[in-house]
Amino acid sequence: MRFLIIGGSDAGISAALRAHEVNPQAEVTVLLEDDFPNYSICGLPFYLSGETPDWKSLAHRTEFDGIAIRRGYRATRIDIAAKTVEVSTAESGQISFPYDKLLIGTGAGPIQPQIDGWRLPGVFLLHTMKDSFAVHQYLEDAKPRRAVIIGAGYIGLEMADALTHRGIEVIVASRTSSVLATVDPEFGDSVGKELERHGVTVCTNVDASKISQVGNQLHISGSHGFEQDCEMVLIAVGVKPNATLGVEAGLGVGQKGALLTNRRMESGVPDIYVAGDCGETWHKLLSRYVYLPLGTTAHKQGRIAGENAMGGQREFTGSLGTQVVKIFDLVIARTGLRQDEADHYGFQPFTVESTMNDHKAYCPGATPLRVRVTGDLATGRLLGAQLMGKWGAEVSKRIDVFATALFHAMRVDDISDLDLSYTPPLSSPWDPVQMACQSWNTTVNTIRGERQHV
Amino acid sequence: MRFLIIGGSDAGISAALRAHEVNPQAEVTVLLEDDFPNYSICGLPFYLSGETPDWKSLAHRTEFDGIAIRRGYRATRIDIAAKTVEVSTAESGQISFPYDKLLIGTGAGPIQPQIDGWRLPGVFLLHTMKDSFAVHQYLEDAKPRRAVIIGAGYIGLEMADALTHRGIEVIVASRTSSVLATVDPEFGDSVGKELERHGVTVCTNVDASKISQVGNQLHISGSHGFEQDCEMVLIAVGVKPNATLGVEAGLGVGQKGALLTNRRMESGVPDIYVAGDCGETWHKLLSRYVYLPLGTTAHKQGRIAGENAMGGQREFTGSLGTQVVKIFDLVIARTGLRQDEADHYGFQPFTVESTMNDHKAYCPGATPLRVRVTGDLATGRLLGAQLMGKWGAEVSKRIDVFATALFHAMRVDDISDLDLSYTPPLSSPWDPVQMACQSWNTTVNTIRGERQHV
Repeated sequence: MRFLIIGGSDAGISAALRAHEVNPQAEVTVLLEDDFPNYSICGLPFYLSGETPDWKSLAHRTEFDGIAIRRGYRATRIDIAAKTVEVSTAESGQISFPYDKLLIGTGAGPIQPQIDGWRLPGVFLLHTMKDSFAVHQYLEDAKPRRAVIIGAGYIGLEMADALTHRGIEVIVASRTSSVLATVDPEFGDSVGKELERHGVTVCTNVDASKISQVGNQLHISGSHGFEQDCEMVLIAVGVKPNATLGVEAGLGVGQKGALLTNRRMESGVPDIYVAGDCGETWHKLLSRYVYLPLGTTAHKQGRIAGENAMGGQREFTGSLGTQVVKIFDLVIARTGLRQDEADHYGFQPFTVESTMNDHKAYCPGATPLRVRVTGDLATGRLLGAQLMGKWGAEVSKRIDVFATALFHAMRVDDISDLDLSYTPPLSSPWDPVQMACQSWNTTVNTIRGERQHV
Repeated sequence: MRFLIIGGSDAGISAALRAHEVNPQAEVTVLLEDDFPNYSICGLPFYLSGETPDWKSLAHRTEFDGIAIRRGYRATRIDIAAKTVEVSTAESGQISFPYDKLLIGTGAGPIQPQIDGWRLPGVFLLHTMKDSFAVHQYLEDAKPRRAVIIGAGYIGLEMADALTHRGIEVIVASRTSSVLATVDPEFGDSVGKELERHGVTVCTNVDASKISQVGNQLHISGSHGFEQDCEMVLIAVGVKPNATLGVEAGLGVGQKGALLTNRRMESGVPDIYVAGDCGETWHKLLSRYVYLPLGTTAHKQGRIAGENAMGGQREFTGSLGTQVVKIFDLVIARTGLRQDEADHYGFQPFTVESTMNDHKAYCPGATPLRVRVTGDLATGRLLGAQLMGKWGAEVSKRIDVFATALFHAMRVDDISDLDLSYTPPLSSPWDPVQMACQSWNTTVNTIRGERQHV
């Protein structure tokens, strides 16, 4: 049994490990375009901030017992009929790899920006280890004092934090009216303030259109009179699936050009599986496929593909879009659907925000937690939650309580039934998660009562 | 509608608030024996450590709009036939309170120790606000330099932390062979080390039998040659339900003398409800009633009793025994059943301990988390989990992810399906909760494989 895997990041390596675990006799081969198997791409900002001095420590793992990792092997074509993959290598030229089962785990790449001059020296896209080496080299050599970051999503804001950590003055240009558009503007505005509190200049509603070289400086201009000079530009405006290889082999394509796959990670073409950022993702709450590339999902899907390639029948239960990010001292998390997303998909969402201390105020160090609960007025079901609080306030695992409740399709009202832990320095007898749900219920009941009286 | 509540702690006040919320017309009265409605008894160690300077801040709340709180009103007898409660008051002598619905929320009290001399001055039991004032007064006046704590459960160990914080030398006498017997000895031993690291002397396997006054000192002796001199003794050897009032009224009694109640918190006697530490608790995992007094449970049961007294039909979904405690820099948590408990109740439990970092090691500040997963070999179901890690490692909300999974009767293998949050400074692509479950599965499969080969 030859299990061939194209891509050695989260999905590919998870698949390889799982396949080897369930069938140690299988011949598992991973084709890796670069030299960095299973590196934590999410860790790049920490490497570039200087907090992670050695890039080698970004490897999720360095031991791959029983798995053949082929570094510098770029897959160029899949021959479905012959069940082979053509591979271009520096050392041995073109090689053909036969397979019994094949996984496409080619990931995603940065969206190429619609900005003139984005290929100028000093302008960077950040996605691969190679990208980050280039940025690192530039930081060391050119010693930029001022950087503009175009894009105010996770990577953009983590890099704003990272470059500030290095003592660089940072300007963030956000296309949306508040940064971090993955959460509601109420939170995005607070994240913007947190950035400014740490010296970052935040410019919203900016469509950057042009970068030009002016002497030793880069000049960026954009909508609403945005004009900035700097020595470095980082562009992080989202990712798109690396689907070409699959598409050319005849695999189906869905949302945003991502490869089609079912919940067993089967592509529809016999013996070919798809997992991770190159493919679509089953959304548990929406019961439909979406494009939602996340490292956590890639790990899960890879593991399932690996198990199924060895004869398993495991299904991916679905994503809830659970995400968390730390920006300076603030942690922001979400799971499930926002009000506008739930609206779009035909729910009757209603969102209530509550603020509570993360633990009993009489114990030192209590800090406010903001919780936004979105529930469905038609069914009372929890649809989503967003949390924001200080680092140390257990924001990320509190969103996970919501995520676990969502996974089980709980009603907002029933969250109070959960037997959650309590000790005064860490929570309240009702956890903030539960208090926020009670507050949602009370608000909804009050509004319903008022409507009945009108 | 007169809703009378005996007891103004967690259960009583939760019931009152909920009753008033669902039926603002109801006449809600709380009979409070002391002067401290809805105080956080769990906060007493923090008051006594000096971390909570003002005891008044221990009140969970101070506003009770729409609820009549009668302070210093001690219920002495319930007349079921007449539907009245006899109350002894300092100001107005004996008063009779009629009720339509009655809630008994009389809580629990400390077990009286089987130790000679436990009533000597300088020896304290700690359960009520009044107790804590006495301890506080003694700490201020007698300025003890050395204290012996008898009992190594939550209160005992939190007080060891608190008195150490005050600069007092502390000796803990534990009856069990490791402290904090509510978790496995593997964890208890580490907690013991944490205590010693902070200067606490830990003596295990000690049955304290006698306290005597020797000059200005108290002398305590116990089994295994335990002999200690000190200026203060704190005894915390557990609690028992305050059930007398209910028992004398003819209510049924179950586990450990606790009042019987069903999942609607009905006592069996018409119009009388029971909630909190004076009654039994439905255990969700065991599907039976147990005695498991916890503040979180009291809040839930009170809320349900309050809703049902107003005509509701809500059921208490059950406790999982979720608990957490912070001892110095260590946080220890559990939910569900330990191996020995699961054994006792007829499961086929198997426990696997794993150690992982709380977040990616390449980000500063990663600390080890120890996770003990207990699953059922017969069904694969999760039965319980124990976690230990440093304060800040989100131990308490990680146990809550387990608790939420347990609530939904998840299989250990399925925990990997949960869409939990990830960012390098706060977790891993598989959260430690999931890695520990994967480790349980791998271990179980390996053992099964080996057994098949024998």
